[in-house]
Amino acid sequence: MFEKFYSERIKHTPSSFIREILKVTQDPHIISFAGGLPNPISFPQQELKVSMNRIADKYGAKIYQYSTTLGLDSLRQYIADRYKKNWNMDITIDNIIITTGSQQALDLIGKVFINEGDKVMVEKPSYLGLLQAFCLYNADFVQTKLNEDGLDIEELKNTLKTHKPKLAYLIPNFQNPTGLTYSRENRENVFSVIKEEDMILIQDDPYGELRFENDERLPYIGMNKTNKNIYLGSFSKIITPGMRLGYVIADVEIIKMLETAKQASDLHSNIFGQYLISDYLYNNDLDVHIEKIKDLYKKQANAMVEAMKEFFPENVKYTIPKGGMFTWVTIPENKSVLDLFDRAIKKKVAFVPGHPFYVNPQNVNTLRLNYTNSDEETIRTGIKRLAETMCEL
Amino acid sequence: MFEKFYSERIKHTPSSFIREILKVTQDPHIISFAGGLPNPISFPQQELKVSMNRIADKYGAKIYQYSTTLGLDSLRQYIADRYKKNWNMDITIDNIIITTGSQQALDLIGKVFINEGDKVMVEKPSYLGLLQAFCLYNADFVQTKLNEDGLDIEELKNTLKTHKPKLAYLIPNFQNPTGLTYSRENRENVFSVIKEEDMILIQDDPYGELRFENDERLPYIGMNKTNKNIYLGSFSKIITPGMRLGYVIADVEIIKMLETAKQASDLHSNIFGQYLISDYLYNNDLDVHIEKIKDLYKKQANAMVEAMKEFFPENVKYTIPKGGMFTWVTIPENKSVLDLFDRAIKKKVAFVPGHPFYVNPQNVNTLRLNYTNSDEETIRTGIKRLAETMCEL
Repeated sequence: MFEKFYSERIKHTPSSFIREILKVTQDPHIISFAGGLPNPISFPQQELKVSMNRIADKYGAKIYQYSTTLGLDSLRQYIADRYKKNWNMDITIDNIIITTGSQQALDLIGKVFINEGDKVMVEKPSYLGLLQAFCLYNADFVQTKLNEDGLDIEELKNTLKTHKPKLAYLIPNFQNPTGLTYSRENRENVFSVIKEEDMILIQDDPYGELRFENDERLPYIGMNKTNKNIYLGSFSKIITPGMRLGYVIADVEIIKMLETAKQASDLHSNIFGQYLISDYLYNNDLDVHIEKIKDLYKKQANAMVEAMKEFFPENVKYTIPKGGMFTWVTIPENKSVLDLFDRAIKKKVAFVPGHPFYVNPQNVNTLRLNYTNSDEETIRTGIKRLAETMCEL
Repeated sequence: MFEKFYSERIKHTPSSFIREILKVTQDPHIISFAGGLPNPISFPQQELKVSMNRIADKYGAKIYQYSTTLGLDSLRQYIADRYKKNWNMDITIDNIIITTGSQQALDLIGKVFINEGDKVMVEKPSYLGLLQAFCLYNADFVQTKLNEDGLDIEELKNTLKTHKPKLAYLIPNFQNPTGLTYSRENRENVFSVIKEEDMILIQDDPYGELRFENDERLPYIGMNKTNKNIYLGSFSKIITPGMRLGYVIADVEIIKMLETAKQASDLHSNIFGQYLISDYLYNNDLDVHIEKIKDLYKKQANAMVEAMKEFFPENVKYTIPKGGMFTWVTIPENKSVLDLFDRAIKKKVAFVPGHPFYVNPQNVNTLRLNYTNSDEETIRTGIKRLAETMCEL
């Protein structure tokens, strides 16, 4: 009815495929591996309740008043300290802006950097929320293949040479949707290819802390070697997503531009939530809490991998996640994943078909499974149902 | 340093003038009428503390988990019920989306409706946050003069005829920055002029509840007579701005487009805050609380008007607010308000020069004063200082 009033950008922006699927999966008898929700038992509810009462008593009206666009100083200081401790990253609070979840960080970066038709390089497949956000700024996406060990270096070279992208967006740790992680060698190779390019590199890292094995924490690509890097982080997967608190780490000049964009977008992020999370962080040991989440998710990931090993047909492949929330499944090329989806729903099991993770989905034979929001027994039952569906194809 | 990477839109977006002024007014000896903050004593702190403990016990993990883009049903239901009660507005929760403050509503409307160069009609002067937000979507603004009783009808006719705007943005109640309110007759005249136009009318109403006299609640322009109206509301001025919770009321089709835009912008607004405000609203009488705020602000507004009457030179004019948070002052045409500002800061009193409220500020001789965040004695002292500064010009 209002068609003639709508902007061109909104007309070609897909509404989230996943949210459409979530409607199908309202049926409580359906086992859903479609979402990307943290396990609710991972939220530190008791500690947050202590913190909310403490900040109410300690700060009074301040937790309810308008606040600064960049975000609460104490929270930004905690982030700066943590990145210094974990990666020896060379930053101060002036390099940090708090955002309304990582999703807003993507929107603000789109506002600040993207002119219509600007080339943006993303992984193939990539995070659908990024594709949506940058689509609203009429970005022209190019995709570079993701392998088991990270970006395909030859394809990366070709992409850069052919398209000269202005921005690149990568998720180097436990990527969404594939669960894959870039190896140390791949990170070095990627940086040696891109370091001479006139390009801003965005590294989104919502899952990096959810590393199942206590092996080495891999450094970000080009970390401390260039000021053309932008890092995104989030409290959604390690404390609570409901508060919508993420952050951007970047050069001070870029932070100032993001601040102007954020003023126009929502003035500032919920200040009560910032006080709450800051109080929680200074009065609890985040690493101890993260260990508990990792133990939980590692068991659930193992349950899924074991079940896939036991039940999936031999011609179906899957990634083995070493952290994060997802595994990525590839069915034979001549099979339709949408056909699989329709049949799976009838067997009361759901997943996300690969389509929304590609810029130009064609003959898609991949799908994403989430294991963080189901217990081990449910995971085994659901994977068995899915395997049975696969055999019917 | 990153100049070549920035988008055209961000290069021509002004960072907030007011936030720049706030830096000057950090000095605790300065009496500031520059901000737009609610008085912190108006926040229902005790009741909110009761509510936060109640929702933590009652809803558990739900207050921390990801949630729906449209917002919490119970909160949307409260809004629908209130608009039905107050204005007999014909809506259901499907006509409502919760936003991260009203500022986000402006951003989302920009995303959904504005193509580069689309004409947007605003009042002269208009809310600077709207000018910032739509500037990022490369809107082409046209302004129509605001008189004591509302929009100038002749100028409105000319503006519509000449520019054929796609959108119009008005604040009919206790406008920011002028404090003016459209009369019932003016509202009817405006609607009779615009009703045949192919135009979406946005009515932003953050201050409407802060009506000092218990006279009649004036209806929105064209209410219940067209589906091309969009209404914005907010809890910032009547409960707390720190939670960043506002809302849009519109036709269901428009709400769905805003939902897609919001998915890409921040997924959803802070769900803890939505549960908190919803619980507060269902367990307290909002109207009783609003009466207290009105009593407080009415006294402060009167103190400012009385002091302006007593101290201001005769050639200085000002609006007499009947609600809201601001008064608008006009100094003689041959005087510079920026000169006044510099001198006023030296006398330790601050205000917002009129510039950021105009699309093309030229020879500006107007300024905005806020009275909600100072007590009566401070207001009198500050206005006296400002009057002395005016006499020096």
